[in-house]
Formats: sequence, C-alpha cells, structure tokens
Amino acid sequence: MKPLAVCLVSGGLDSCVAAAVAAQDYELAFLHVNYGQRTEARELRAFHEIADFYKVKHRLVTEVPALKQIGGSALTDPNIAVPEDEPSPDRIPITYVPFRNAHFLAIAVSWGEVLGAKRIFIGASQVDFSGYPDCRASFFTAYNQVIKEGTRPETEILIETPLINLTKAEIVKLGQKLGAPLHLTWSCYQREDVACGRCESCLLRLKGFREAGLKDPIPYENG
Amino acid sequence: MKPLAVCLVSGGLDSCVAAAVAAQDYELAFLHVNYGQRTEARELRAFHEIADFYKVKHRLVTEVPALKQIGGSALTDPNIAVPEDEPSPDRIPITYVPFRNAHFLAIAVSWGEVLGAKRIFIGASQVDFSGYPDCRASFFTAYNQVIKEGTRPETEILIETPLINLTKAEIVKLGQKLGAPLHLTWSCYQREDVACGRCESCLLRLKGFREAGLKDPIPYENG
Repeated sequence: MKPLAVCLVSGGLDSCVAAAVAAQDYELAFLHVNYGQRTEARELRAFHEIADFYKVKHRLVTEVPALKQIGGSALTDPNIAVPEDEPSPDRIPITYVPFRNAHFLAIAVSWGEVLGAKRIFIGASQVDFSGYPDCRASFFTAYNQVIKEGTRPETEILIETPLINLTKAEIVKLGQKLGAPLHLTWSCYQREDVACGRCESCLLRLKGFREAGLKDPIPYENG
Repeated sequence: MKPLAVCLVSGGLDSCVAAAVAAQDYELAFLHVNYGQRTEARELRAFHEIADFYKVKHRLVTEVPALKQIGGSALTDPNIAVPEDEPSPDRIPITYVPFRNAHFLAIAVSWGEVLGAKRIFIGASQVDFSGYPDCRASFFTAYNQVIKEGTRPETEILIETPLINLTKAEIVKLGQKLGAPLHLTWSCYQREDVACGRCESCLLRLKGFREAGLKDPIPYENG
C-alpha cells in the first residue's frame, strides 16, 4: 500500500501539477482552504473536479476566516483592486495574503498527523512568484523543523515542494508530461465564469503556456 | 508610544499571566481562537473580561473550524472522554489537539504583520504540560525562523514565551505579583458554570494554587 500524502489543492495550475507529482508515489488526501478569496466558489469547483479525476477519497474542505477578517491583501479585501500587470520581482505584490501558507500548512499537518500521512505536497514556486515570502524554499525548510518539533514523536511528515524552482512554462510542461488535468484548473484572481486574462495570475499563466508552446485549455474573456 | 504585541488569550490562567507580562512593555492586541473546544463559550467570556480589565482596544476573535473537523483530541471530539487524572509526563495526553499552536501562531503572525506588531505572547509552559509537543521551547524557536522566512522583510515579529520554564505554582505567583485578574480566568476542560475540579486542567490549576500557598478565586463544583 502506498504511503499517504496530503496535497494542498487550491484548484489552480500549480497545485494540480504538484498533485500529479504526488500521485506517482503516494495515495492522495486533498485539502482545500477557503479564506474569503474573490474566486472562492470557482476554485472549490476546480478542487472537486481535480479530486474526481484522481479518484481521491480523503477530502477536507475547510476555511480560515481570520485571513479575511485581517485583510491587507487584494485577494481578501474588496477595497483593494487586483493589479492588472505582471508582478515585479522587486516588490511584494498587493495580492500577498499575509503569512497565508503558514495557515494552510498548519491544517495540512494537523490532518496529516491524524491520518498518519508522510508527506505534504504544495505547489509553491519561488521563480515566478518570488515576491511572496511564504513561497520561498527557505520558508518550507524552516517549516519542516516546526513540524518536527511540534508534533508527536511518531509523526514523520515532510513538506514536498516539487515546483519550487520551476518557471510557469516548466510547470505547464511537467503537468502535460504527467497527464495532469490542466483543463480543470482555475487561476484567475478576478472572475469565475471565464478567466479575465488581465490579472497578474492570468498573465503569468498565459505566458507559461505560451513559453511552453501549448494552448491554455481554459476559456478566456477575449478568446 | 509602546510597541504593539499580539497576545494569544484563551481565557485560561496561563495566557492571562502571559498578557500581564506583555502589558509591562507593550500595547496589547488580544487574539482569541474558537476551535470547537468543549468550553468555547465560557473561554470567550473570560477573554473579553480579561481584555476589559486591560482596556484592550485591538481584539480579534476568530475560529479554526479545521481542528474540530479533523478531531483526534478529547478537547474537540465529543466521543473521546476528558481524562480525570493528572497528565503523566511519559505520554502525550489525549487532550493534545494536533499541532494546535501552529494554527494560533499563524493567525497571530498574519494579524501582527498587518498591525505592525513586534511581538507575539503565548502562555505556553513546557514544565507541567511537557506532553504537548507544540508547547516546547524548541517548537517556538523553530517557529520564529518560519516567521522570519515567511513574512515581509520589514516585518519583525518574535514569539515571546515568558512562562515556558515556569511551573503552575510559579505562574500563579507571577500572576499575583503582576496584579493579573486571575479571578476572571477559566481553565476547566469540561464545565462552563463552575469548574469541575476533576479534569486534568483543573487538577493542575488547583495544585498550582495550593503549591503557591494561595486560594483559587474561581468557583468549583465541590466548594
């Protein structure tokens, strides 16, 4: 029997490809977190469609209301506009949700400890989104130490970040190679019917497909 | 103007004394987390009464529904009984809520980052509750590194654990010395009207007051 891995699956491109990597060696447990982000409902639909694709039985959908209460990000505060240009490597984007990945990892570890999981897969990349401090390799290395110190002695959970040094184009190519259901994923920060094609997440995704020489299979507002 | 500290205030004895320590040097921001624990309502009342005592303006009350969904603890699963004896130093108590403090710290850091706080105070002690892995000094040391790596470069938040090496009796004495409102605190894991006096939390608290030579000011079931 394969060991169990908790996969953080937002419904976006990166988490889908990270789950595809995990599926090679692990039984999957899919975790999805609503935190008051703008496209919550559309992301949840993508989560379940990707989970169905991988026939995932262990699913946990939960929420972190604190992130919306706290605000401070264009993703959770309706009064802060989502930028419509590519993120600059020199500044932290206003879409940064303060310390968000620490919340997601805490839930993944609590659940993983009760399930007896061995790994947590997260689709973070420090290449294209190096502006998010909680997406850096050094953050995950430090978090692995927190898991070791803060859980039962018999718990042995490690975070895996298979995409951490990949560009968006490399992530697209890896997903295609592994047969990941990229057509089921959702990345747009603004819209839920068709992708806007203008927000920083859409721009990065479209550039990734373009550089990979592939057509993005999801519908966009302008074709 | 004093720098700001986020205090994790459950409403129990330890967090009240930790807040009293913080009040000496910091402006206070009080954070309370409901996570489906048995005595949620009574703890929240204690939180607000302690916050009123210290005239705290910044208050955040939030919830982590995942911990109840995940279960695995007598505090969050009604099917697991709360033990009525003192915890043994040799085993992890069944009241351990898997990785709970990592959730609380994540919220405290996100809030602290938006508020511009400098410190997070948590009333953890590794002496009497050494059975909880997420109450050990090594856990908080590791978590400080996660904060450093996972937040904005200008964010400088450190966790303070002023009670980490104190026994319950020493915590009681420190609280009395600092004028902490111990009469407003609630520690019982089982009851909300009067403290049961029998659960492991009541037993530890009563022993602490007894060893400190003081009378516990809260009402107990049997006198």
